[in-house]
Amino acid sequence: MKFSSKVQKCGLSPMRKFHPYAVAAEAKGRNIYHLNIGQPDVITPPAFFEAIRSFEQPVLAYAPSPGIPELIDAIQGYYDALDMHFDKSEILVTTGGSEALAIALQCILDDGDEILIPEPFYPNYNTMVRTCGASIRPIPTSPEEGYHYAERSKIEPLINAHTRAIMVTNPGNPTGTVLEHDEMRMLVDVAKAHDLFIIGDEAYREFVYGGEPLQSFGEFADAAENVIVIDTVSKRFSACGARIGCLITRNHELLGHAMKYCQSRLSVATLDQVASAKLYTVGPEYFAAVREEYKRRRDTVMRKLKEIPGVVCKCPKGAFYLMAALPVDDADKFQQWLLEEFEDNGDTVMFAPGAPFYATPGKGMNEIRIAYVLEQEKLERAMDLLALGIKQYNEKK
Amino acid sequence: MKFSSKVQKCGLSPMRKFHPYAVAAEAKGRNIYHLNIGQPDVITPPAFFEAIRSFEQPVLAYAPSPGIPELIDAIQGYYDALDMHFDKSEILVTTGGSEALAIALQCILDDGDEILIPEPFYPNYNTMVRTCGASIRPIPTSPEEGYHYAERSKIEPLINAHTRAIMVTNPGNPTGTVLEHDEMRMLVDVAKAHDLFIIGDEAYREFVYGGEPLQSFGEFADAAENVIVIDTVSKRFSACGARIGCLITRNHELLGHAMKYCQSRLSVATLDQVASAKLYTVGPEYFAAVREEYKRRRDTVMRKLKEIPGVVCKCPKGAFYLMAALPVDDADKFQQWLLEEFEDNGDTVMFAPGAPFYATPGKGMNEIRIAYVLEQEKLERAMDLLALGIKQYNEKK
Repeated sequence: MKFSSKVQKCGLSPMRKFHPYAVAAEAKGRNIYHLNIGQPDVITPPAFFEAIRSFEQPVLAYAPSPGIPELIDAIQGYYDALDMHFDKSEILVTTGGSEALAIALQCILDDGDEILIPEPFYPNYNTMVRTCGASIRPIPTSPEEGYHYAERSKIEPLINAHTRAIMVTNPGNPTGTVLEHDEMRMLVDVAKAHDLFIIGDEAYREFVYGGEPLQSFGEFADAAENVIVIDTVSKRFSACGARIGCLITRNHELLGHAMKYCQSRLSVATLDQVASAKLYTVGPEYFAAVREEYKRRRDTVMRKLKEIPGVVCKCPKGAFYLMAALPVDDADKFQQWLLEEFEDNGDTVMFAPGAPFYATPGKGMNEIRIAYVLEQEKLERAMDLLALGIKQYNEKK
Repeated sequence: MKFSSKVQKCGLSPMRKFHPYAVAAEAKGRNIYHLNIGQPDVITPPAFFEAIRSFEQPVLAYAPSPGIPELIDAIQGYYDALDMHFDKSEILVTTGGSEALAIALQCILDDGDEILIPEPFYPNYNTMVRTCGASIRPIPTSPEEGYHYAERSKIEPLINAHTRAIMVTNPGNPTGTVLEHDEMRMLVDVAKAHDLFIIGDEAYREFVYGGEPLQSFGEFADAAENVIVIDTVSKRFSACGARIGCLITRNHELLGHAMKYCQSRLSVATLDQVASAKLYTVGPEYFAAVREEYKRRRDTVMRKLKEIPGVVCKCPKGAFYLMAALPVDDADKFQQWLLEEFEDNGDTVMFAPGAPFYATPGKGMNEIRIAYVLEQEKLERAMDLLALGIKQYNEKK
């Protein structure tokens, strides 16, 4: 049977590649510390579950295609409090931030088009872009420069007649980089100057550790035609399993096209919308506690990394990931060795090898992404295992 | 700003076209009987809400990309009871049947490809097919023949080098047609003979009123490479708002490609999956009662239609829709007149005009789709309003 040429250009998740090795290691009795996945361990605000328990309608009916009014109101109110003012019609509720991304890209990318994305980047962008028939042109960075990409002189030479958009994850996954306000201004100005969309995937907005104000490309109301904000309750409220996100834009032509997708999939899950609206009643003390906890974890990871000779890693400012270059020949081989041969008191460790976060072949081979989503004690042990693993891996050769 | 050529070929839902007129009519105090939407009024089995209320995990985490094991088990068990045996890996849980359809089509359709679909068909297929860069080649039918399409001599001449699949909704939306077993066999044989996929959108499987056994293209294990089954809990359990569906196929290459989409959107809503697994514990008495109720409604609609001079409609055998040709010049104009000028004791009626269910321009102009999702008394009144409306509409001219 024949399959779409587009889906044939896509791959399975590189994150899952080591899953069979992990299963085999566990079968041998190994205990694995997981620094490889971005599932936070923070408790979902009880307001979510309370809302679901008190749902009283006897028929679980379709919700309206653009989302239920209570949730749209809640999202609008959240942005109003950040001094970003959107009309209700400018907010489309989606099945996770993932659907918001897929819809935005399907609306703006055509066969042969290009989108600029700083690399390393979230690997799922590959499938989302390739299924539109388009391709990612990476904005290059380096571990030595802390994966800094926001320079006009780096970006403008990459723009050509096929370029349709610039997309950034801010705060960054996998790098933890956080844009300065004037860097965001510059990116918006570049988008305006070249008639490009600027897509801000802002799933990690609350996760900033230097006292920065919460930021969004939605601030730039002067770029109403260009800016697309991708948002989600997944990380903000540790509600990844709700699959509730939204697409926000002041570009009404885009909203019209996006609505075609929203209508064709009818609606987003009703109960998850009802409950997610209640998440927005959570107070600032919730975010302060979460931020404090992740900051402590980040600092632990950085302290431990600095003790490992040969590691290159600048301290990230946000999200709950960081990329680091390790003094190993190949992070893939190292991960496989950790699962097949290494152990310390029966323990080993998993991270995400760096290469799949890059579009440029050969880049990221000695880099890894660490998700610091373990509690303090486990995190320290995981980092000690990483250090010991590097030492033994290099000695054995 | 430039938009994708594919999304520009799509349209907004034709079902929504009369929404502003309905709002205006209601503002004038009109009471509208809705025969235009397919939202059933049957109560969702309480097992769904009980499962959600007893969910105890403090973190609402991502589910696995192919679905949670309990739900896959439940779906597998449901098919086993129908003597269709699928491996767990052959069932992918999706966000509604809509996502299952979108994923299947994205995997198999490329730019310039064609898919055969009997017309009239579910209008959302248009967006799903066009965003793949493909187009629908309709298999023509007529109201006089009860929208019958399953004839080899009608279908084979439409197959060309660009044809990739045949897709049917069975039982049918909007027509209520139900395939005979030997017609399904013939469609499968045509698909096999021409190396095509055969996609069965079987959302309404339980809604058959002639004592037929429950059917599925999944029965044809000899066409393992060809058959794709689209399923959902939406209508079966009156749980449209759960957005839980699945894609089932024995074609493992297709499963591999579909998994790329599943991984790129991470997962389906966790709680809705947990609760939907419990829906499958509902016993046969639930379906018997629902079937009895809809059969009564169908019979009411048919009895009332027969009393209207000039209406063409053969009695449909399934789903909860029917198409009828009315003795009016234009169903669109008639609907608008019903909302703007007609009333009887303050009441009026809405249906779905037929043209948007057709791909062939000009077809279906005097046809309508009736969704018989109202309880008996309201349904009788709605049909009386339709009869009176037709009489007055034709008299005024």
